[in-house]
Amino acid sequence: MSKSIQYAIGVDLGGTFIKFGLVNSEGKIVKKTFLDSKAAEGPDKVIKQIKKGIKDLIEKSNYKINGIGIGAPGVISTKKGTVENPPNLPGWGKIHLGKIISKECKLETFVENDANAAAIGEMIFGAGKKLNSFIMVTLGTGVGGGIIFEKKLFRGETGAAGEIGHLSIDYKGDNCNCGSVGCIEAYLGNNYLINRVVKEYDSNKSSLVFSLIGNNFELLTPKVIADAALQGDQFAIHIIEKLGNQLGYALASVANLMDITSVIIGGGVSGFGEKLFNSVETAMRDRVLKSLQTRIKVLPAKLSNDAGIKGASSLVFYRN
Amino acid sequence: MSKSIQYAIGVDLGGTFIKFGLVNSEGKIVKKTFLDSKAAEGPDKVIKQIKKGIKDLIEKSNYKINGIGIGAPGVISTKKGTVENPPNLPGWGKIHLGKIISKECKLETFVENDANAAAIGEMIFGAGKKLNSFIMVTLGTGVGGGIIFEKKLFRGETGAAGEIGHLSIDYKGDNCNCGSVGCIEAYLGNNYLINRVVKEYDSNKSSLVFSLIGNNFELLTPKVIADAALQGDQFAIHIIEKLGNQLGYALASVANLMDITSVIIGGGVSGFGEKLFNSVETAMRDRVLKSLQTRIKVLPAKLSNDAGIKGASSLVFYRN
Repeated sequence: MSKSIQYAIGVDLGGTFIKFGLVNSEGKIVKKTFLDSKAAEGPDKVIKQIKKGIKDLIEKSNYKINGIGIGAPGVISTKKGTVENPPNLPGWGKIHLGKIISKECKLETFVENDANAAAIGEMIFGAGKKLNSFIMVTLGTGVGGGIIFEKKLFRGETGAAGEIGHLSIDYKGDNCNCGSVGCIEAYLGNNYLINRVVKEYDSNKSSLVFSLIGNNFELLTPKVIADAALQGDQFAIHIIEKLGNQLGYALASVANLMDITSVIIGGGVSGFGEKLFNSVETAMRDRVLKSLQTRIKVLPAKLSNDAGIKGASSLVFYRN
Repeated sequence: MSKSIQYAIGVDLGGTFIKFGLVNSEGKIVKKTFLDSKAAEGPDKVIKQIKKGIKDLIEKSNYKINGIGIGAPGVISTKKGTVENPPNLPGWGKIHLGKIISKECKLETFVENDANAAAIGEMIFGAGKKLNSFIMVTLGTGVGGGIIFEKKLFRGETGAAGEIGHLSIDYKGDNCNCGSVGCIEAYLGNNYLINRVVKEYDSNKSSLVFSLIGNNFELLTPKVIADAALQGDQFAIHIIEKLGNQLGYALASVANLMDITSVIIGGGVSGFGEKLFNSVETAMRDRVLKSLQTRIKVLPAKLSNDAGIKGASSLVFYRN
């Protein structure tokens, strides 16, 4: 109790919504709000929305705010605070978002890649609090990642490190949108996953996965697969275990390469639950070098729903 | 010339021979020697040989020697100077080699994994002098690796990082001796490679690869394949390009994960020359994320024949 509580604003910049939260240094969200991104209207409009949301939080709060953290998609330079070509935000090119926001809101502003922000968030507030080093994997439309090594974000030469979604598990495998082959994202990314399940319809017509959606493939989501698995549907369980294994194989390679053996998994598909985590851990332990085997640990992320906001706010409390 | 030249002893501990060199701080070997490892006679005998070689060099030199560096196979704790279960050195268990040698020879002694020592050697004396970060790959019986990040060896959580040979490129691929599947070592390691070439004999009977050895498969080595390729043999060239591509695919995954885009390749198979390096670089560039593409650089190691001795001696000149 001796340490006084501090406050920061976390901004989770997405293609559809921008989420804002006033977060304290214990990871509790004191107040939150969201706005349409209005991405189609171009960067000026999006930036206007960001400013609006932040100012709204500042005005409605009586706390002394220490700074602003923004988690954004795309290539980020944390030093310069720039955001470059974020997917789902058309027309951006390279924008000095940190400088713009800090000038307007008169608060120190930190910009970080959203997957890295999630990793820092888990380290500061979540499942990584007691870990020195871990690999963070976020499963969603894409497969993102962040590497924490000795309590610091491992950024690589230019800040682009952590793209675990583009680790290939099969050099003759499925095509990935990135232009490569066999990337783990091409197996676990939502759309790839859904497409693969649809292709298996003919030999699994009686599965709950398909009856839950009245055979209307457009309604198929990871959530449907998770629901079917919860009800014991064998096909759904098989899908989850298969993708868990594939992720585990990729993570075994990461562990062999970097000697980092703890993994935290978050994002939508992690709603697949225990079956997913168990299959990732089993596969990883099965494929990793013997000397690392007993150290393998696969944990669910803790920040869940508000991971974006909390991860972004944690940038203010974290200095690398 | 203002910096005074220093001297160190480098010891390259192998299963057959132990090589010793007196190396100066500019990477020049002033004197060198070698002894049988006598590995079959157990660790006490091997250690006796190590002491003998070092003392011999000390006695025959008039230089002030700054310390001893030992590159050894197996699991090494650099802090404790221990060598654990080195393959090809039976009966070792865990031995405090650093302490034993430093006590006997009255010189500070550094012990490091041989692949890591090679990486440090290339950083201090070789192809990595001007690079901040690079991945070192050594091709031989096994495929070893070392990661240099911002002029420091990246050791991971326990000092085991850099096992690029056990990055899998095909989760349904060939079995590796480590117990995993599709490891790059299971494609590029000398024995795996030779076995694969022998299997392709039936459809390539007329290749120089086989006529150079009078169809006696026991004589088949990477050197034979290199010779055949130099003479334009298409089958030999195909083999080299295929394994170069496979290594390049693995390295693209490493680059995406760690944002390290320079690679130095050394060891026996790197004698495959330009064709190997070109195919590694082409494959790596082809599969890496677009934002990293132009930075990809694949270089041959410079320390070549005396890499083991120079790499080991560099441990004395390098403080992490």
